[in-house]
Amino acid sequence: MEFLQLVNERESTRRYADRPVEIEKIDAILEACRLAPSACNSQPWKFVMITDRDLSLELANATFSQVLQFNRFTVQAPVMAVLVMEPARMLSQIGSTVKDKDLSLIDTGIVAEHFCLAAAELGLGTCMLGWFNEKKVRQLLHIPKGKRIPLIITLGYPADQKKRRKIRKSTEEIRSFNRY
Amino acid sequence: MEFLQLVNERESTRRYADRPVEIEKIDAILEACRLAPSACNSQPWKFVMITDRDLSLELANATFSQVLQFNRFTVQAPVMAVLVMEPARMLSQIGSTVKDKDLSLIDTGIVAEHFCLAAAELGLGTCMLGWFNEKKVRQLLHIPKGKRIPLIITLGYPADQKKRRKIRKSTEEIRSFNRY
Repeated sequence: MEFLQLVNERESTRRYADRPVEIEKIDAILEACRLAPSACNSQPWKFVMITDRDLSLELANATFSQVLQFNRFTVQAPVMAVLVMEPARMLSQIGSTVKDKDLSLIDTGIVAEHFCLAAAELGLGTCMLGWFNEKKVRQLLHIPKGKRIPLIITLGYPADQKKRRKIRKSTEEIRSFNRY
Repeated sequence: MEFLQLVNERESTRRYADRPVEIEKIDAILEACRLAPSACNSQPWKFVMITDRDLSLELANATFSQVLQFNRFTVQAPVMAVLVMEPARMLSQIGSTVKDKDLSLIDTGIVAEHFCLAAAELGLGTCMLGWFNEKKVRQLLHIPKGKRIPLIITLGYPADQKKRRKIRKSTEEIRSFNRY
């Protein structure tokens, strides 16, 4: 489908059907991620795919707090992708330091969106989570100490096919020409 | 076109044809950006589009150093998009602080990749730049003090239509199941 249509198709899915995700679809999504661009072609990422039901329930438990009560929908997601940040190339690391912005976090956004758009094309829903207990996730998945986990992405067939209208700023608010 | 094909189509273009970019195409690209997702739907971005030739030459000058000699190709780009980071919603800001990761930088990667993919679909080339003189760019475009400029994206018709093969890590290197 056309890119703009795909962009419209993608939405954050917080209700999942009780239906497994085909391994071929997971592979196709990861291929779109593998080809994503990154600063100095560092590809500073690894995806730990959680398909085991017991493990995914434990993982879901690490994504919501009893107090704040959000992200509870994660228990429904048949698959979760845990995005681990890997070391970037030296030049990218120097750029991040000298220019005081973590280029690997920008790369994370790029590759995570490839994940979500590729999934949307296959009729799958996703939701990016930035809020979770990183230490608990690290322990659960045997992720080496010191490695950051910028995002978890839930994946599955949406329980509800109805698309919501995207609430967004107007073009005028986000764009100007030749000066701020 | 299919998403994977589009992903393959997109590449970092560092040689531009001497040909202007139609305003309709700029509009279409920005519409794909406008609809991009972000943490707590903050949409923490503004695009300053540089279409004025004199200004874009001055801007290009702020993207390369005499010493390091990279990014010199920016003088050829007929259009440049300067991505300014706008304040995120309170909940996203709290998340960035509590979880010690700048969610707005992840959002920047998402929206910048929407820009590049939308451009690729229209036959346009792009290149994301993270390395430039932010202070000089801020002055040149009257961007308020204190606002960060995470990326500049060059935009134009590629001078060279030949696609290069993407050099990427293997699937095995970037993916595992149920444990790191």
